[in-house]
Amino acid sequence: MRAALMERGKIWVDTVPDPVPLAGEVLVKTRACGICGSDLHAARHTDAFVATSREAGGAFKLTTFDPVVLGHEFSAEVVDYGPNTPHDLAVGQLVCSVPMLARANPLAVGYSAEIPGGFAEYMVLSRSLLLPVPNGTPDTHAALTEPMAVGLHAVNKARLAGNEAILVLGCGPVGLAIITALEQRGAGPIVAADYSPRRRELALGQGAHLALDPKAGSAFDAQELKRSRDIVIFECIGVPGSIDKIFLAAPQNARIVVVGVCLEMDHARPLIAINKELSVQYVLGYSLDEFRQTLHHIADGSFDVAPLITAHVGLDAVASSFEALRDPERHAKILVEPWRA
Amino acid sequence: MRAALMERGKIWVDTVPDPVPLAGEVLVKTRACGICGSDLHAARHTDAFVATSREAGGAFKLTTFDPVVLGHEFSAEVVDYGPNTPHDLAVGQLVCSVPMLARANPLAVGYSAEIPGGFAEYMVLSRSLLLPVPNGTPDTHAALTEPMAVGLHAVNKARLAGNEAILVLGCGPVGLAIITALEQRGAGPIVAADYSPRRRELALGQGAHLALDPKAGSAFDAQELKRSRDIVIFECIGVPGSIDKIFLAAPQNARIVVVGVCLEMDHARPLIAINKELSVQYVLGYSLDEFRQTLHHIADGSFDVAPLITAHVGLDAVASSFEALRDPERHAKILVEPWRA
Repeated sequence: MRAALMERGKIWVDTVPDPVPLAGEVLVKTRACGICGSDLHAARHTDAFVATSREAGGAFKLTTFDPVVLGHEFSAEVVDYGPNTPHDLAVGQLVCSVPMLARANPLAVGYSAEIPGGFAEYMVLSRSLLLPVPNGTPDTHAALTEPMAVGLHAVNKARLAGNEAILVLGCGPVGLAIITALEQRGAGPIVAADYSPRRRELALGQGAHLALDPKAGSAFDAQELKRSRDIVIFECIGVPGSIDKIFLAAPQNARIVVVGVCLEMDHARPLIAINKELSVQYVLGYSLDEFRQTLHHIADGSFDVAPLITAHVGLDAVASSFEALRDPERHAKILVEPWRA
Repeated sequence: MRAALMERGKIWVDTVPDPVPLAGEVLVKTRACGICGSDLHAARHTDAFVATSREAGGAFKLTTFDPVVLGHEFSAEVVDYGPNTPHDLAVGQLVCSVPMLARANPLAVGYSAEIPGGFAEYMVLSRSLLLPVPNGTPDTHAALTEPMAVGLHAVNKARLAGNEAILVLGCGPVGLAIITALEQRGAGPIVAADYSPRRRELALGQGAHLALDPKAGSAFDAQELKRSRDIVIFECIGVPGSIDKIFLAAPQNARIVVVGVCLEMDHARPLIAINKELSVQYVLGYSLDEFRQTLHHIADGSFDVAPLITAHVGLDAVASSFEALRDPERHAKILVEPWRA
């Protein structure tokens, strides 16, 4: 099959062996797979990514420098079953899955050299983790289940009581997923901040009440944030120094939810956080239940993901798409459709 | 009156004008005042302390390089009243107060050049903030209300559900206050860690179930911590790098309460905290209510503070006591008694 391979930032298309489903596994045809900020990180900072994955443990892994087929935000259709696996979904059924293959040593789909991720024509997935996509939901929308589940999980981890004013810093796909989940549960006021006019527009579309340009003044000064004594800040930027800047700008007792993945060593002055009794909740991923809920929110329209999809490309354009995503004006989510000519 | 002055780390005894109580204020004679880790920080890192205090805002302040009379952990007796102030406490009454003078621009007692802290024969305090010390409570014990309130507050901020296993890293006065507050409410198991045998012994005395030497192996490996899936870690060390070390060693979903004041720029790898979905609550100080509760816990014996007091000194020994506190084997809390010969 054809696949886009990545090794230390280099991306190319090649023919690789079709994956073979084992017992309890299903062979699927990839219908659509989004490019995630973590993929860009893994490509641009492979050494740091691998080193930290090895050291840290946890779910977010890339532990090898070998060529890898990235892609973990996918929808796919059932093609065939592994041995001793109940054929209980029809061939052709559209499915989603958390990007995890439930082997004795679980593998992260899209971050493992042993199995392909979604930037390839086929994948193998665990039958026990497959979720059928409700009828009528486009495959392109279903592919956004994974990134939108990240937003839903981050909002759950914030344990909102309902009276909070909310600031979302950074309106890339993660920030937009959080705004979507906040809007769906009626939280807010929601103030969003991003340097990109395009992204601010998307933020307003997903439910932000106000979208500010940090160049025009600190988002922390927004009147909407003064409406509550409880401020929750979602950090969706993920570059070194942004937490220290939040420590400086945040009001007393603010709760910070860190969703932006900063791969490098970061620096911050704890005394500032101590003086204000700030709290920081680091979050990652989602539960199986949150993933399932997200798929249903997409299917029933309560998460409107269509505006977030800014391009559809084939495998040959994966490399150029990784480049294009450097410019926040051009794209939010690019979907790779491996069967597209 | 006589006072110990501090300027950029230099400490000397001098005669300074007696402070004069304004309306609503009380002149008090200092009976005992503890030396706090923050005092040592302020003396050893005055530049960083002043710079961060100015930048950060909040309660924990030293905003001047002028000579200052430190000391904010005190008990005192009523001597005289300012104008238009109800004389509702008898002269000689033993009192405590949060170290704050409630003027139009509030002043931190012990961190302000305008008014003396507790390393002086007299202070002025706000009548509205004075708490009479219950009869029979020694002035030396009452002087520990402030540092013990820090421990009570940190434990409150941890929002314990009751099923947590607890690790206290660092058994200086802050760690010991936390262990005391944890023991009083029956929390635990409590595992304590410190390089100093003396401090480990004090930790066991205050209620730790186990006190480990980090040189002999990671405290995170203690079997007592495996008893619960909910781990709360109190960071009471406050040196750069300790939070990153905790990120590396902590189990999934651990909650970290940072009580150790690190004055310098700190570094940590957020990806590690993200991978494990750690949370960090930075804490400082206490509420008026927590301060009052602490005084009553000391008075009724439920906080046993006597073992924590390792020396009583006069003003002439303040400078040498600051030096002596570098050695964790020698002291926990040194009380300055300004009237001692």
